[in-house]
Amino acid sequence: MKRRYAILAPGHFAQDAKTANGVIRYSSDETVAVIDPACAGKRVRDVIPHLASEAPIVATVADALALGPTSLLIGTAPKGGALPTEWRNEILVALDRGLEIVSGLHDMLGEDVEFYRAARRRNAKIWDVRKPPKTPVFTGAVYDVAFPTVLMVGNDCAVGKMTVALELTRAARETGERPVFVPTGQTGIMIAGWGIAVDRVISDFAPGAAEALVLEAGKRDASIAFVEGQGSLNHPAYAPVTLALMYGCAPDALVLVCDPARTHIEGYRTPTLPYEELIEIHERLIATVKPARVVGIALNTRNFDERGAQQAIAQARSSTGLPADDLVRYGPSAFYAAVKGWIKRTACVA
Amino acid sequence: MKRRYAILAPGHFAQDAKTANGVIRYSSDETVAVIDPACAGKRVRDVIPHLASEAPIVATVADALALGPTSLLIGTAPKGGALPTEWRNEILVALDRGLEIVSGLHDMLGEDVEFYRAARRRNAKIWDVRKPPKTPVFTGAVYDVAFPTVLMVGNDCAVGKMTVALELTRAARETGERPVFVPTGQTGIMIAGWGIAVDRVISDFAPGAAEALVLEAGKRDASIAFVEGQGSLNHPAYAPVTLALMYGCAPDALVLVCDPARTHIEGYRTPTLPYEELIEIHERLIATVKPARVVGIALNTRNFDERGAQQAIAQARSSTGLPADDLVRYGPSAFYAAVKGWIKRTACVA
Repeated sequence: MKRRYAILAPGHFAQDAKTANGVIRYSSDETVAVIDPACAGKRVRDVIPHLASEAPIVATVADALALGPTSLLIGTAPKGGALPTEWRNEILVALDRGLEIVSGLHDMLGEDVEFYRAARRRNAKIWDVRKPPKTPVFTGAVYDVAFPTVLMVGNDCAVGKMTVALELTRAARETGERPVFVPTGQTGIMIAGWGIAVDRVISDFAPGAAEALVLEAGKRDASIAFVEGQGSLNHPAYAPVTLALMYGCAPDALVLVCDPARTHIEGYRTPTLPYEELIEIHERLIATVKPARVVGIALNTRNFDERGAQQAIAQARSSTGLPADDLVRYGPSAFYAAVKGWIKRTACVA
Repeated sequence: MKRRYAILAPGHFAQDAKTANGVIRYSSDETVAVIDPACAGKRVRDVIPHLASEAPIVATVADALALGPTSLLIGTAPKGGALPTEWRNEILVALDRGLEIVSGLHDMLGEDVEFYRAARRRNAKIWDVRKPPKTPVFTGAVYDVAFPTVLMVGNDCAVGKMTVALELTRAARETGERPVFVPTGQTGIMIAGWGIAVDRVISDFAPGAAEALVLEAGKRDASIAFVEGQGSLNHPAYAPVTLALMYGCAPDALVLVCDPARTHIEGYRTPTLPYEELIEIHERLIATVKPARVVGIALNTRNFDERGAQQAIAQARSSTGLPADDLVRYGPSAFYAAVKGWIKRTACVA
């Protein structure tokens, strides 16, 4: 049964509601309302045109109820993943009406005594998307999968690694492949309905979780797998998750996803790196375990006008010699066609 | 009050009881017995001469009780950290006599219903050393600590990173420093009585845990900190923990700890790397966040005779141009004297 989402993003929808954006754009579930008092009265497409959704934005959960939601989705993941206290009441209103709660926060809502009791009273469900299953320590079984695996890496968090993986999956499907999108974070899991939030896994087991995900793609009959990336290899806080995916997924190829406007890792003094250096450190490090090449650069040019976007793409191509494009602005087909040969070739060599 | 340990390591004491070895050698708590039927009747020094301990080895917990232990320590950490079922009975015997249980396993013994009840019945304590406290996401506060921080890295797990950190701490203390040994794993925590098992921390928070440990060293009035290392940067399963320490501790210098006899990462097909390559990838990667140099190579030559050890040390020196030594075989003073200048200099530059 499809869900009908009311998406909770108070004060965040216009700025940084990454989860809300991803679900509205890519989920097969319907969004019937967004809850954000800062934009109440508008429609989603008025605030974020490329989402092309007519869903109304309302001020409270109570206002959204008339639109018949089945589920309240927590639409943004604050740093550290904790639940802002002012959202508690809104969640309780939803539970009190028997709505399912879907959350990607680090705080497990199903383990919160107040939410747990409210849910039980109305027989409502709480889906803590980030709660990982138990997975074993990395074994190396992933080295024997028969299909090529492509991992997204990037120059920072929140630059579009999930989006690029989804777009490449779509492009591959159109060419007759059986691509599997491999979700490694909460939004990807909400969209695909399976996956593991690797950033939530105990460090010793994170590469094992990444390995389990690629093995699962095999069970889903993948002819090629596109793995959602996490963090960045020079991110002071989240690089260990990036590395867990690099070693645990044992990819055959990497796609570098970059926001060229980013000068620093968001929230830190650490500078972002030029393409050439990013390519070098990823290839250098992964070669110590199982070699994989960066086969293309997917740019997020949302902060540029058309001319700026074209320049950024041309600059990425000329400085690296690799295919480069913005897959949201120009569609994924040309980029996929350009990197496909490289992916297949490097996968065979490995 | 000092503990009197009976150390449980059935079938493992002679081979791979890393925790038992570390505690017997470095803890200020006393070991009154080791439990291992495979060596029962001998003394610790008969099986592992360099531990120089007269403690008897017995077959069961029941046999150890006459020696007056206060605590049963789980003396080995199997891969994945799960509790072998055959050890359950031994632990229950100890709990039934009111002994404290000290465990560094991933399985939390205090959360096991049977152990929990047995402990409560006798008012016995269970110390799950690996259970991490809640720590925040990495903030960057560690960049402002005033003392130099030295992190151990290595060519594999179980090569002596903790031992080298402890030996350097001892050498620094002898020269009048106020060194603090920073424990990042279960054995280090048992020895020092504080610390966080970073491999047990949720991936998103692992660098934050590393940061918290270095800040704690500051509160302990460190004039220099030596951080116990974990895993290896090209370890397919545990490299994310290594990277969490490299970024989270923001070290000023790295000491490379290697077992030169190791040709592959233990348990995997991944080859270990030559010194030059190890130095290059560590320095290359850490420079993207905060630069630190490898200032010396600490070798574990336990698998070599005297002549082989000397040759291995000479080879490490000539191929890297860095100070190299075996700090257990020859003591830490000369090595510490050789690297101290480098540590202080690079710390000032950073």
